[in-house]
Amino acid sequence: MVADVVDTLCRTVTAAKEIRPLSSAVPHPLDDIFHPGSIAVVGASTSQSAMGWVERLLSFGYGGRIYPVNPRATEIAGLKAYPTVRDIPGYVDYAIFNIPARLAPRIMEDCVARHVKVAHIFTAGFSETGKEEAKALEERVIAIAKAGGVRIIGPNCMGIYNPAAGLTFNPLFSREPGDVAFVSQSGAGSTRFVQLANSKGIHFSKVVSYGNAVDLDAPDFLEYLAGDAETAIVTCYIEGVRDGRRFMEAVRECLATKPVIILKAGLTESGAGAAASHTSALAGSKSTWEAFFRQTGAIQVDTLEEIADVILALRYMRRPDGRRVGIVGRGGGIGVIATDTCENAGLKVPPFRSGTRKELAKVIPEAGAGVRNPVETTLGFDGVADFYVKGLNIVDGDPEIDFTMTNIAVDIYGGRQPRMKEGLVKAVEVLADTARTLKKPLVAVLYPGEQVEAVAAVLEARQKLLEAGIPVFPTIEAAARAVSRLINYHTRKDQLRKGVTG
Amino acid sequence: MVADVVDTLCRTVTAAKEIRPLSSAVPHPLDDIFHPGSIAVVGASTSQSAMGWVERLLSFGYGGRIYPVNPRATEIAGLKAYPTVRDIPGYVDYAIFNIPARLAPRIMEDCVARHVKVAHIFTAGFSETGKEEAKALEERVIAIAKAGGVRIIGPNCMGIYNPAAGLTFNPLFSREPGDVAFVSQSGAGSTRFVQLANSKGIHFSKVVSYGNAVDLDAPDFLEYLAGDAETAIVTCYIEGVRDGRRFMEAVRECLATKPVIILKAGLTESGAGAAASHTSALAGSKSTWEAFFRQTGAIQVDTLEEIADVILALRYMRRPDGRRVGIVGRGGGIGVIATDTCENAGLKVPPFRSGTRKELAKVIPEAGAGVRNPVETTLGFDGVADFYVKGLNIVDGDPEIDFTMTNIAVDIYGGRQPRMKEGLVKAVEVLADTARTLKKPLVAVLYPGEQVEAVAAVLEARQKLLEAGIPVFPTIEAAARAVSRLINYHTRKDQLRKGVTG
Repeated sequence: MVADVVDTLCRTVTAAKEIRPLSSAVPHPLDDIFHPGSIAVVGASTSQSAMGWVERLLSFGYGGRIYPVNPRATEIAGLKAYPTVRDIPGYVDYAIFNIPARLAPRIMEDCVARHVKVAHIFTAGFSETGKEEAKALEERVIAIAKAGGVRIIGPNCMGIYNPAAGLTFNPLFSREPGDVAFVSQSGAGSTRFVQLANSKGIHFSKVVSYGNAVDLDAPDFLEYLAGDAETAIVTCYIEGVRDGRRFMEAVRECLATKPVIILKAGLTESGAGAAASHTSALAGSKSTWEAFFRQTGAIQVDTLEEIADVILALRYMRRPDGRRVGIVGRGGGIGVIATDTCENAGLKVPPFRSGTRKELAKVIPEAGAGVRNPVETTLGFDGVADFYVKGLNIVDGDPEIDFTMTNIAVDIYGGRQPRMKEGLVKAVEVLADTARTLKKPLVAVLYPGEQVEAVAAVLEARQKLLEAGIPVFPTIEAAARAVSRLINYHTRKDQLRKGVTG
Repeated sequence: MVADVVDTLCRTVTAAKEIRPLSSAVPHPLDDIFHPGSIAVVGASTSQSAMGWVERLLSFGYGGRIYPVNPRATEIAGLKAYPTVRDIPGYVDYAIFNIPARLAPRIMEDCVARHVKVAHIFTAGFSETGKEEAKALEERVIAIAKAGGVRIIGPNCMGIYNPAAGLTFNPLFSREPGDVAFVSQSGAGSTRFVQLANSKGIHFSKVVSYGNAVDLDAPDFLEYLAGDAETAIVTCYIEGVRDGRRFMEAVRECLATKPVIILKAGLTESGAGAAASHTSALAGSKSTWEAFFRQTGAIQVDTLEEIADVILALRYMRRPDGRRVGIVGRGGGIGVIATDTCENAGLKVPPFRSGTRKELAKVIPEAGAGVRNPVETTLGFDGVADFYVKGLNIVDGDPEIDFTMTNIAVDIYGGRQPRMKEGLVKAVEVLADTARTLKKPLVAVLYPGEQVEAVAAVLEARQKLLEAGIPVFPTIEAAARAVSRLINYHTRKDQLRKGVTG
């Protein structure tokens, strides 16, 4: 008891010395969880793998104290190891449970004894197994934590990634902080999503993989993110929620100041079963969720890739005045497929005005090059670049068009180029320069095809375009869906403001 | 006149000497068009570009005679050039028009004079421009050809690619002959499709890009392909047809002995307009085409990539007994998304029987690893390979499952591997070995993510799987759609045989 009091005092003193990022003047109770000053890794591995929890934090540059806990080690990754959490001399904000599920109650008791703020239970093997004894085990852990004031993330999850705080569950994630938050019921989904987003220049304020959500649940994180000044866009992978009303309110609270993108998994019959098995979530009916999206105005997507696509549209594209797109790129059959794809995604590809066509016919010397919409550029990357200089403003100026979509068919043009990457990069540099002179929004599609060389060229070219503030998509379909969702989001926001709830 | 008769005789004699591949005992009139013994390139370029028509044929190893025609050259790419077609000493089977549209009537007169069998009018600038004078020009060319017995491919098209005959419009296409035919109203579409198909190990018997189709039209090519012993699968990109009834009959004739896959472009309002501008095709209503697909049993797809996906399913997969898939790969959230995706594509992902789950739990040591369906493998490529050996037959043996889909999340597993390609290739080799012992069909999904290294590894691994006869798809969505279309195709074929026409 005395030890506890002393420790609490020590902890207060030590905590005061730590420099913690403050996201707002009045700290939210979850602030400590996202910015722990010290972490205990319970069940720290002695195998010296780069993927050990201690190694992950060290290699990521976590600045707080790391306490490896392992009764069979004295040192792990150069840090002193402790037999139990109780043996750690300093305060512990955050404990990672990397131990067999059956040991969780005892470890949780240790955490309670040391006033740990949050336990991230990485371990699986609880209620998601569907087994009675595993459910009972989970209940015991919850009861101990609740009585002792320890919050739980998980079980069966990856925990928190907060690059600004040097906290990660994967050392391959970007160390650059950003303004996108991701709240995810899936661990592997988080790993996939963060990496694919990073590669598109999207960086994160906070990511949390929260698994079974026996304590901290999506609404807790969403309520926190609604007031988080570091977060401009909230994204979410969700299988099910316990308290639908609270979830809805939390999403609405976010939406009052920032867009919310939600991938609701388990909407099919088979998917609902898989979700129940994964996080023991009740998936909810399709019609319930349709009503949820209609009533909140949150942006619904079907895949992790689509979350990233919508982020790019939100970030780099102002709202177009309407759904009418001018397509610049391969015309012909590829243009017809592109046109169908755009219309199927909710856009329109109207013919240009005759004045526009006449102007375009002057700058495209080849007979047969389409000038109706889609407009065909001259062949090769030089031809593409040349068209951007001469023709992009003509398309942009057509009153029938609300925004422009450039489509560089790298697979077709690239095959003719001895220096594919140089040619493509030059073309997109011209595009970036020309984009500054346009009055309407612009999106770019870079379709690489199947060649490694083309993929490498596309990744470099994409980087250039993103740096210039132009959203880039891998396919016409991805671009059309993202823009359509952006327009839907703004339209619905307007309706909800005006009180249209139907 | 005397010269003509002599030339005709010469031609017969010369033709007899040429070795032409025969696809059937009784040659079809179009056989000569697909296997020309000599080609005149009218408007052969003197610029020595690798993309010149003469150079394309030479570099592709065309074995017949090539006659460059250009009044301002005496030699092109090492071959004697002739001022006009009339000046060519030998017979000419096939003439490529690479000249301004306005010269087409005169060149066609020359072709008539020399009994050319087919004129491939590459040149655009005819009826597809929508201009009256261009339409009149096209009419004149048609009239001259018709009166003189010259067949026309085009105008506004790429012509024929027949690797067995050494004939191509693109030197980058595979020289390996295959058994897939592609009949395309789009030139750029053909270029994209052949290359993406080639990279998936799909090779071609005959490809024709026929553009405006003023003479030879889709039905002509389809009727030919119905009886072509070299063609096992017929694929088609179509914007519109002139004679719907004849088109339908030609498709039915093909379907009597081989599958037909059709991408019908221009089905949306915007797309129909773009198609009219591209090939002056009347796109036809959506309901008309729905009826067409229902009544013929042809396989409908929406993109060129999907044509390739369905080919892989047709080629490498026997018909599953039903739509129930066992998913092996990343479980968790990625598995839930995969499950929704499969169900949305028309498949089912039922839970495994309890006996199967018990068996799977024995071979997957990690607690929390899903055994319900999808089934989670152990982490890393070694873990994946290990599961294939121990668990794939258990999944295959579950009576609730009609086929298995393996899903290697290269983006997730790859990040942990110092030697990504080696690890992945080893895993797919084990998969290929294990596949031989399975009783039910198997498909593989290799999702590379966004890293160049992963793309390179995936392309090599895909090659291994295709060589082992396992169809490979880039995403769960692509795999699920392809298999669903395969099942629909077989189901509809059965119904039509039984006389179900509704």
